[in-house]
Amino acid sequence: MLDILRRIVQEVSSATDLSDALNVVVARIREAMHTEVCSVYLFDADSKRYVLMATEGLNPEAVGRVSLSSSQGLVGLVGSREEPINVDNAPAHPKFHFLSETGEDPFLSFLGVPIIHHKRLMGVMVVQQRDSRQFDESEEAFLVTMSAQLAGVIAHAEATGNILEMSGHTKERRSTRFNGAPGAPGVGIGTVYVLSPPADLSGVVDREAESADEEVQRFDAALQAARDEVRALAAKLSGELRPEEMALFDVYLSMLDDNALGAEVRTRIRETNNWAQGALRQVVMQYVGHFQLMEDVYLRERATDILDLGTRILAHLQGSDAHAQERDFPADCILVSEELTPAMLGEVPASKLRGLVSVKGSSNSHVAILARAMGVPTVMGVVDVPYTQLHGLELIVDGYRGQIFSSPTDELRQQYQAIYDEEQALQQDLQILRDLPAETRDGYRIPLWVNTGLITDAVRSLDRGAEGVGLYRTEVPFMMKDRFPSENEQQKIYRQQLETFAPAPVTMRTLDIGGDKSLTYFPINEANPFLGWRGIRVTLDHPEIFLVQIRAMIKASEGLNNLRVMLPMISSVNEVDEALHLIYRAHAEVLEEGFDVEMPQVGVMIEIPAAVYQIRELGQRVDFLSVGSNDLTQYLLAVDRNNPRVADLYQAFHPAVLNALKQIADGAHAIGKPVSVCGELAGNPMGAVLLMAMGYDMLSMNATNLPKVKSVIRGVNMAWAKDLMQQVLTLESAPVITATLQLSLEKAGFGRIIGPAR
Amino acid sequence: MLDILRRIVQEVSSATDLSDALNVVVARIREAMHTEVCSVYLFDADSKRYVLMATEGLNPEAVGRVSLSSSQGLVGLVGSREEPINVDNAPAHPKFHFLSETGEDPFLSFLGVPIIHHKRLMGVMVVQQRDSRQFDESEEAFLVTMSAQLAGVIAHAEATGNILEMSGHTKERRSTRFNGAPGAPGVGIGTVYVLSPPADLSGVVDREAESADEEVQRFDAALQAARDEVRALAAKLSGELRPEEMALFDVYLSMLDDNALGAEVRTRIRETNNWAQGALRQVVMQYVGHFQLMEDVYLRERATDILDLGTRILAHLQGSDAHAQERDFPADCILVSEELTPAMLGEVPASKLRGLVSVKGSSNSHVAILARAMGVPTVMGVVDVPYTQLHGLELIVDGYRGQIFSSPTDELRQQYQAIYDEEQALQQDLQILRDLPAETRDGYRIPLWVNTGLITDAVRSLDRGAEGVGLYRTEVPFMMKDRFPSENEQQKIYRQQLETFAPAPVTMRTLDIGGDKSLTYFPINEANPFLGWRGIRVTLDHPEIFLVQIRAMIKASEGLNNLRVMLPMISSVNEVDEALHLIYRAHAEVLEEGFDVEMPQVGVMIEIPAAVYQIRELGQRVDFLSVGSNDLTQYLLAVDRNNPRVADLYQAFHPAVLNALKQIADGAHAIGKPVSVCGELAGNPMGAVLLMAMGYDMLSMNATNLPKVKSVIRGVNMAWAKDLMQQVLTLESAPVITATLQLSLEKAGFGRIIGPAR
Repeated sequence: MLDILRRIVQEVSSATDLSDALNVVVARIREAMHTEVCSVYLFDADSKRYVLMATEGLNPEAVGRVSLSSSQGLVGLVGSREEPINVDNAPAHPKFHFLSETGEDPFLSFLGVPIIHHKRLMGVMVVQQRDSRQFDESEEAFLVTMSAQLAGVIAHAEATGNILEMSGHTKERRSTRFNGAPGAPGVGIGTVYVLSPPADLSGVVDREAESADEEVQRFDAALQAARDEVRALAAKLSGELRPEEMALFDVYLSMLDDNALGAEVRTRIRETNNWAQGALRQVVMQYVGHFQLMEDVYLRERATDILDLGTRILAHLQGSDAHAQERDFPADCILVSEELTPAMLGEVPASKLRGLVSVKGSSNSHVAILARAMGVPTVMGVVDVPYTQLHGLELIVDGYRGQIFSSPTDELRQQYQAIYDEEQALQQDLQILRDLPAETRDGYRIPLWVNTGLITDAVRSLDRGAEGVGLYRTEVPFMMKDRFPSENEQQKIYRQQLETFAPAPVTMRTLDIGGDKSLTYFPINEANPFLGWRGIRVTLDHPEIFLVQIRAMIKASEGLNNLRVMLPMISSVNEVDEALHLIYRAHAEVLEEGFDVEMPQVGVMIEIPAAVYQIRELGQRVDFLSVGSNDLTQYLLAVDRNNPRVADLYQAFHPAVLNALKQIADGAHAIGKPVSVCGELAGNPMGAVLLMAMGYDMLSMNATNLPKVKSVIRGVNMAWAKDLMQQVLTLESAPVITATLQLSLEKAGFGRIIGPAR
Repeated sequence: MLDILRRIVQEVSSATDLSDALNVVVARIREAMHTEVCSVYLFDADSKRYVLMATEGLNPEAVGRVSLSSSQGLVGLVGSREEPINVDNAPAHPKFHFLSETGEDPFLSFLGVPIIHHKRLMGVMVVQQRDSRQFDESEEAFLVTMSAQLAGVIAHAEATGNILEMSGHTKERRSTRFNGAPGAPGVGIGTVYVLSPPADLSGVVDREAESADEEVQRFDAALQAARDEVRALAAKLSGELRPEEMALFDVYLSMLDDNALGAEVRTRIRETNNWAQGALRQVVMQYVGHFQLMEDVYLRERATDILDLGTRILAHLQGSDAHAQERDFPADCILVSEELTPAMLGEVPASKLRGLVSVKGSSNSHVAILARAMGVPTVMGVVDVPYTQLHGLELIVDGYRGQIFSSPTDELRQQYQAIYDEEQALQQDLQILRDLPAETRDGYRIPLWVNTGLITDAVRSLDRGAEGVGLYRTEVPFMMKDRFPSENEQQKIYRQQLETFAPAPVTMRTLDIGGDKSLTYFPINEANPFLGWRGIRVTLDHPEIFLVQIRAMIKASEGLNNLRVMLPMISSVNEVDEALHLIYRAHAEVLEEGFDVEMPQVGVMIEIPAAVYQIRELGQRVDFLSVGSNDLTQYLLAVDRNNPRVADLYQAFHPAVLNALKQIADGAHAIGKPVSVCGELAGNPMGAVLLMAMGYDMLSMNATNLPKVKSVIRGVNMAWAKDLMQQVLTLESAPVITATLQLSLEKAGFGRIIGPAR
């Protein structure tokens, strides 16, 4: 039974389009259930009718032509009740509706089950039998199980279908939305260029070499060409990125090193007398297999890198060096790939790049980090999109909400174009705010700081008028390497951050790996990484890594003394005590080494719900508190927002989140400790107003959002903000709260800044 | 660099013992770093000295004989500072300590890094060089990275080493503890029997058949024998389990069906003229590969089942039918396996079975559910144990804490024997409480209910004096099938539960899949399943499944009217509104069908932190509230307790958890709604006293714990309990709270019931 299920699901999944998929469904189910008829009716939202989309056993001519209204017949009954209907004499049922075109009159037994995907009724699946007999329990259960599993596959095929229709096959244009995760903010409108590996390495066959020497020579030339290519890509990106951030490409180049991949392929050619292409495939696939077997997300990403490199070499072997030349990218290019790599980013000239879409990955992938630094609107993890079919289509990338829209309607395009234009104009207009303080009309002043990771971020932040760094993500330089950076290396990187902002304070979060941020050279495999070994949990278990980092930070702050150290993922007072102990020790050691440096301020991140209950106990131990609103929301609601199945349930303005935030601010102030927010909520103008009203002492955000937030704060009264906060704290559901905030800020004249309802 | 790292880690992981592992480490690191010496010193906790355990480059004779005190030499400095030490002239360093046996005087350069695993300093890794030069940054970083990754592998090898020592190679016996997750409560002491597949299917070679017909005949006979064997196993278990719960074996038998596996193997024999063993291997491995590729935990479990069956057939093909006979199990058998299957459980006669240990799986695996129903102490997910080496050793299974102890010292054995004896005696003594109420000495009465899943649980619960069912896990019958059970099937199962307890109320939790509970026929693959699509999130997305279940529940309660419906994983009021809408609809439909049945009470589970903040809003919508303390604790602390890396951080008596529980009780009573707890905390005598003091209206627990909880409640005053609660609510850390509770209950005379400090 499980086998049948599995086989059908696989076969349907690999169907090329909706009609093909449905034909497989009806054929296989009829076979498996030994029944005479199996049909699928899909619900058409426009006409509000069930249309017969596939059948085995009824008149095939009726497909696409016969339909039932939403309340008609047994099919309508199954749909409206959302339950199976199983009758032994269908024509005798009061709801029976005869459709002469289908030739279904001779069938007495009827079993129909709804097809539902994420609450949406997609249609009805029906089996019928000539004899009058009720389908038995196990048959009913089989069809229910089948339908529950197939619903997702059908939904996917339907979305694909829409795209095909749009590409010209039908008169009607329909825009299709696909959900992913926000990768980098902004709106991009343009034409899709799907970047797929130009040569298919896995399709290469083995072939006996005429001369092994010649093959080795050919391979060496291709390897050299690939190496040059990667260097050229790196050079192209170097205008966008700081040299420190280009280290990534060194990793690539070292993989292409003569002694690594190269040596193995050469040996393979000589040992097996296989031609260069075949030997290359064998070696690369062996690596890829190795990495993939490890089942670690980050090693799998590494597998992607190797495959990418192998494919580049293959392209040169095949003489298609054209690939290395500039491709014919559209002038308004939206780059789409199954898995974007930093190298791919370098292929498109910056002047042409409007947006990025990656089917795999999350907002913490390398490419997303680079995209944010470069300011390219990006959506990650759009797992449901049939991306290969997007090539050449028009696409809207909404990097704010993490959505893309293929073949937008004129209306939608205009709407997004307006948002885009508005954004540009707004950034211009807000430029004048740069040196003005974030102060309300009634004189309340709140400092606005920035979140950084790359040096590029830092430079841009100063342009935007940042007054300090509320969150410097130290894991970013760790992610750009293929081993732990040494104390010296860290010290240099940290010094640069501290110097860039001095005398303004820089808050450095200690290494926060685990969760969806992992180091290739320190893999962590867990069933639930967000509830696992991450943040301070890792570094307290490895004091040798923690101490080196703290010493590097303290040394880097010599003469500047603008360092604040922040501890992530704290869930108990014991962790704070342990960490403080190590920090004091590191400071003492640094003094011993002869540095003249103050003990830095130390703070705790409030991002685990347990910490909310212990604000007093935690706050008494440290100098400051800082709320990580993203993770806090995630844990309070038990929602991984990278998971498209439940992303809707991640609600930034959920009443529980707002109440927890109020509780934190009150608790911190009761013991006289400063408290700030460094999650995305702080960079949302509506969120910033609420947080200011709650009494937060500082807000830290992406540099991009800073001018907007400042503009809103300068336009309101604190008294008004407090009233608004009191009002929303009494509301019981997130959608109502969001609508209230939206309306209030629009009425206050900030419609332009908060943009259309999201 | 990454490749070298990966290769070394893999090679070390596959070493056979500690000394082998360390030898690989020093050889490979010396090679990779092109240095002259690489050595590992391990810290011996007994002598408090660093012992040279492996070296390349120093005098090999010194291994195991040379040691340094904890403050001696540069090695001692690295250890005490827990930081790398990198010097270009070691003998000139004030801490240098010359060890003549090692012949190390000619080496000037010294780089040492600590080896730390989960906060524990295990030793120091050293590289040395003849020339006076400081190792450069990248060498230092390489060794740090290497050490961080190898620490876990060395810790594992060390544990293995201990076991080997204990099995007789050294004079000193050392008990080793391994941590897993509690599978079924109780203490088991006995002799290990490692059940590994008796024949190694993957090792079978292909061989040309002399006669395909003969091979098919041989195969058919083996298949028949395997089928008989499974039937016999099922029969053996049938005394322990209800017929409804034996459905699992039907799944096994259907896999062994002539038309499934059988047909494929026969075809394979005829097509390839392979002998039966070879054809069997090919077919089974293909299945296994298929399932394993799916990367879903539950489909991988299914792969285990198929492999198990294939191996059974192979055993018969190899003529080792003896396997089917009773094995020579010790009279006090602790069954250990890499992955226990329900079939394995049936192999050992119940009279001999003292405990179960599974390297893979969690408390929600099939085998753990069965073990709880059978009352066999079980520990799951002991991932670090070198299980194959346990065979024949003495082992203690602590199913309460999820720990095992190999080769216990006399002291430890006596301690656990005392716990075991006490348990037995206690159960006897507590038997008299069966019909007495759970009432404090000052007359406060609190109802004690039970948590159930299998019918077996239910029957045992009545024996223990349960007054109702606070949590019936409806996913258990779903897990025992290979497709969704039909409405009728569900109705029968639910009826049995309701009838068994009538007129006492039975609280049925609606289908709670996702997280670590999945259905083979409805796989869910997610990066963070605990923060994903689970509980009400799944069923609201599939109303067709939810409605069928609710209808089955309501129909089953006809004439009994003791049904309470409980909604899991609620994080917002909208979800409750939607679910209530569907429940009303299902009730109306059932009435329409002519059933005469009342609308059941409906309740919400409080297990997501957001729900704690919305007690009022949620409570106003339903009839009752029930706290799922396990998941609530998990989310409040952001800890997956199945993850051994962070299991220590899961603290049932964390101050945040206790404060949240108090807040829930107060909030529910403020709006006049009853509130109960159905997590493990309610079945912990210390937890039960606190919850009663907080005002919880009912506690629901495992039947096993019920008499203990009742006994404690009958022995205390409510006023005393309230004082205790007030006191612990002011404490700031979990260990202090636990100790306070322990002490207070011991002083009150309950030392016997709460047992020794845990």
